[in-house]
Amino acid sequence: MGRVFIPHSHRLLLPSPSPLHRSSNASTIPRRSRFSPPAHRQIRSELSLSCGSHLIPHPAKVDKGGEDAFFVTNHNGGVLAVADGVSGWAEQSIDPALFPQELMANASGLVVDEEVSYDPQALMRKAHAATSSVGSATVIIAMLEKDGTLKVATVGDCGLRLIRRGQVVFATSPQEHYFDCPYQLSSEKIGQTYQDAMVCTVELMEGDIVVMGSDGLFDNVFDHEIISSVSGSPEVAEADTSQFSK
Amino acid sequence: MGRVFIPHSHRLLLPSPSPLHRSSNASTIPRRSRFSPPAHRQIRSELSLSCGSHLIPHPAKVDKGGEDAFFVTNHNGGVLAVADGVSGWAEQSIDPALFPQELMANASGLVVDEEVSYDPQALMRKAHAATSSVGSATVIIAMLEKDGTLKVATVGDCGLRLIRRGQVVFATSPQEHYFDCPYQLSSEKIGQTYQDAMVCTVELMEGDIVVMGSDGLFDNVFDHEIISSVSGSPEVAEADTSQFSK
Repeated sequence: MGRVFIPHSHRLLLPSPSPLHRSSNASTIPRRSRFSPPAHRQIRSELSLSCGSHLIPHPAKVDKGGEDAFFVTNHNGGVLAVADGVSGWAEQSIDPALFPQELMANASGLVVDEEVSYDPQALMRKAHAATSSVGSATVIIAMLEKDGTLKVATVGDCGLRLIRRGQVVFATSPQEHYFDCPYQLSSEKIGQTYQDAMVCTVELMEGDIVVMGSDGLFDNVFDHEIISSVSGSPEVAEADTSQFSK
Repeated sequence: MGRVFIPHSHRLLLPSPSPLHRSSNASTIPRRSRFSPPAHRQIRSELSLSCGSHLIPHPAKVDKGGEDAFFVTNHNGGVLAVADGVSGWAEQSIDPALFPQELMANASGLVVDEEVSYDPQALMRKAHAATSSVGSATVIIAMLEKDGTLKVATVGDCGLRLIRRGQVVFATSPQEHYFDCPYQLSSEKIGQTYQDAMVCTVELMEGDIVVMGSDGLFDNVFDHEIISSVSGSPEVAEADTSQFSK
């Protein structure tokens, strides 16, 4: 793959986007008052998630519904979670779907736990500790506070994209030990725990679109295709904030 | 560019990374106790930044030192900021370096302002309001709380990469109106304000490497090259957390 060199010559933002034909008189551009921004950060009214979900199993795993699991709940501001079973367990005659399914079932029940309150890393810890199935999974959990703060904890290569005004303004990055061996919560000591999670928050705005999914989505669909898909969906356009799990 | 298809068949994490020759007996893998994670999230001791910086002007702008500006301070847990002047102003006989330089000078002085306390978006608001130069700039500001929470506010295409154990585990995404016209804080009403900033936090761990810079870095150097550069630097290896501005 060649490298695209972007010349370091940014365009000036003008009232009308006509950089090739703009006036050279700077005074034609309305000046911003030095103190025009409000003196205090805007107070956001309560935000909540409007959610949708979709699961397309790998073609070779259609008969058993795939190895992903997820849940969505409107508890507090809303909770979204996706877990992706590590396929390698099938070589040891263990169904890779069992661990993520039990993990998500446990997490779903634990969102009301008072120790979890708005903390996705704590939810990950408690759900993992409660899971007895043999196996492992990559996991991402996002919890929305009503002030618009989305808290995220992720282990492995499940991902999240935040789409605002038609562009991805925030994205998680995958964690892996080496190619195709992601960080994973596991029934085995060799695996990762909540302590290995990448933990972050992002401030949402009304109209933001949150797309969460396993690597099966993000490895096979470019971000610009995800943007086109969700922007073209009337259901998403009607929602303030929406979630897709694929 | 072709698309790389990653087959949805993750590798199992084993004690020794030898996926082609591993035993098929699951019992050889030590089981993790169901309750092995500590009952409470680990308490991190105070974290602080060890910083370095570097500026390489665009070849055509060497004589005046380029159009980027930045500052680093150890106030509280540490503050890092980078601003990149929008080159288009030169076509209007305005030096694109003046706005980012004044913006960073103002921000540097305002980190001690009590209203700013650990809030990079508030610092952006106050520094912007205090800047009287004509021009515009993309900006990123990161402030570290001593508990290890790095708070980030960014407008435009300056960026941040968090490198942990040799991989990028967190990265910001650029915001732009259209190709090569980034979101920008401006002296003009048409520009963006702190209210347009993407605001996020990420929990740091000891040994993390934070790389911040203008698009001049991230458009021209692949992440794996940045990782190689900082990993091969004894100065960075000695630092707990380090920052590079290019």
